Amino acid sequence: MTEKKPVIVVHGGAGTWQPERSQPGLEGVKRAAKTGFEILRKGGSAVDSVMEAVAVMEDDGAFNAGYGSTLNIEKQVEMEASIMNGKTLQAGAASLLKDIKNPVRLAKIVMEKTDHILVVGEGAEKLAKIFNLERRSPMTELRLKYHEQQKKILLEGKFELPKLYNLVKNHPEFFELETVGAVALDKDGNVAAATSTGGFPLKLPGRIGDSPLIGCGTYADNQAGACSATGVGEIAIRLVLAKTVCNFIEDGKTAQEAVESAISLVNKRITATYNSMGLIAVDAHGRIGAAHNSPNMCWAYLTPEIKEPVASLTAKIVK
Amino acid sequence: MTEKKPVIVVHGGAGTWQPERSQPGLEGVKRAAKTGFEILRKGGSAVDSVMEAVAVMEDDGAFNAGYGSTLNIEKQVEMEASIMNGKTLQAGAASLLKDIKNPVRLAKIVMEKTDHILVVGEGAEKLAKIFNLERRSPMTELRLKYHEQQKKILLEGKFELPKLYNLVKNHPEFFELETVGAVALDKDGNVAAATSTGGFPLKLPGRIGDSPLIGCGTYADNQAGACSATGVGEIAIRLVLAKTVCNFIEDGKTAQEAVESAISLVNKRITATYNSMGLIAVDAHGRIGAAHNSPNMCWAYLTPEIKEPVASLTAKIVK
Repeated sequence: MTEKKPVIVVHGGAGTWQPERSQPGLEGVKRAAKTGFEILRKGGSAVDSVMEAVAVMEDDGAFNAGYGSTLNIEKQVEMEASIMNGKTLQAGAASLLKDIKNPVRLAKIVMEKTDHILVVGEGAEKLAKIFNLERRSPMTELRLKYHEQQKKILLEGKFELPKLYNLVKNHPEFFELETVGAVALDKDGNVAAATSTGGFPLKLPGRIGDSPLIGCGTYADNQAGACSATGVGEIAIRLVLAKTVCNFIEDGKTAQEAVESAISLVNKRITATYNSMGLIAVDAHGRIGAAHNSPNMCWAYLTPEIKEPVASLTAKIVK
Repeated sequence: MTEKKPVIVVHGGAGTWQPERSQPGLEGVKRAAKTGFEILRKGGSAVDSVMEAVAVMEDDGAFNAGYGSTLNIEKQVEMEASIMNGKTLQAGAASLLKDIKNPVRLAKIVMEKTDHILVVGEGAEKLAKIFNLERRSPMTELRLKYHEQQKKILLEGKFELPKLYNLVKNHPEFFELETVGAVALDKDGNVAAATSTGGFPLKLPGRIGDSPLIGCGTYADNQAGACSATGVGEIAIRLVLAKTVCNFIEDGKTAQEAVESAISLVNKRITATYNSMGLIAVDAHGRIGAAHNSPNMCWAYLTPEIKEPVASLTAKIVK
């Protein structure tokens, strides 16, 4: 089997990419892939590579993560992110972040500087203060405008608890389910994954999605590979999707076969609800995988064989 | 294969059970098993059974969950719990709860009344208010005394970040890693799992452990079985342990073989740190499993073949 090292794959989220957002999205994932690959090319670690690639997308504003984060139902930002080192199975994550510039950097601090994996809310804010992380509120005019539009639709004729899944299905243009993520294999053969998001628009305050949950939105294990998920977080949680992809790889599947099998599993087992999902992966042999059941997934990859990142708004669509 | 239905297995936590706590612990798990089994015997669901069994242990005070919860490093209570329905793969969880009497009841509300799976902190408090959940602070004299003792040890000669794992290893008598949990198979062949804890003593504020994380501390799937974990939460997260047990069952292992394999995996892959863990499981055929690598695990089970719950401070110890 040919070993291809180093490799990076990034995603800017599955969902419906409207034409006006497509070009900035494609540019953004290319920039992220290049940044992450440059670190790998110089001999840097997979962990540093995925962190910097995700940080680029958090800073971009075109993605629902970091500066582009959506607002919850109380008009608050609650960002979340995670990172995992496939060599050591160490992981870190943070959630309910209001103004951390790069949630993925805080996730790495949780991994390296605490005995914990997931720290959220005020506790996470304290850690960010101790380690002098940069701040920046994503509460922009654009986000506030989107929020008003989303809330209007939500309130039209609904008296019971919000049925967000139906809302999203009927109004995909107003709901950005996108998350950003990156997986990488470095020259030393170590894999890593990182994922970051602003979460579901109009989510309840305190809701934590799959992005900061190890096994659900993010997983990395040198014995298999690395995976990052995007889409409806609750589905990735119920199926423990990123770990499932790694299990499939460990059982002998390629990264591509593994993500396709996992999306098939979503289609088979989660039927009663809106089940839009996307996955990217890299296996320990450097083979990449990308699949989704949503209309689009904005993603890019870069390997030593090609000079420029390849980006697309679709990968293998599994129905 | 003989099908044994209904079945319930509960645990009151893995760790070192000191003699003075053993008798109340054994009585408590027996009471929980009886409560859960009575629901099953009358034709109730596995979900209701594990919820009520866990609620009994949350109310007991002898376990690190609900009324017996330990305090974090800032002398606050931050309880957490989850529940999962193996028939539908629906799940609910809550964390960073200060005074909810039964965190597992809030987990069920998240599962049934929201589109989300994990809701924490103030957002969770709001839900509890909407649904009129009972309140009770676990901040008792006893817990405050334990907290002072734990903090004293922590501060003795440590200038860097707390190395909690070494502390726990050297002073097991002061650290209650225990969690409570229950798994059940009902007459209709549906499985469910629930887990609840006060968390790691002296944990950082905002730290979330494995108990509210689907796949890590809790998992249930009718195609396999149900599992609840106890011990060092970060290890259950890194290995996505409860889902791993269900995967082993799906691959053909019995519940007992599956929990033993999972503890072996802990011993093999998590070596550089304190790795105390315990697991209970039931498979879809009604076979039960219990294993740990800690000195003790307080647990009990009840099946139609026996009249009274069988409780013990050890199960299969896997070294």
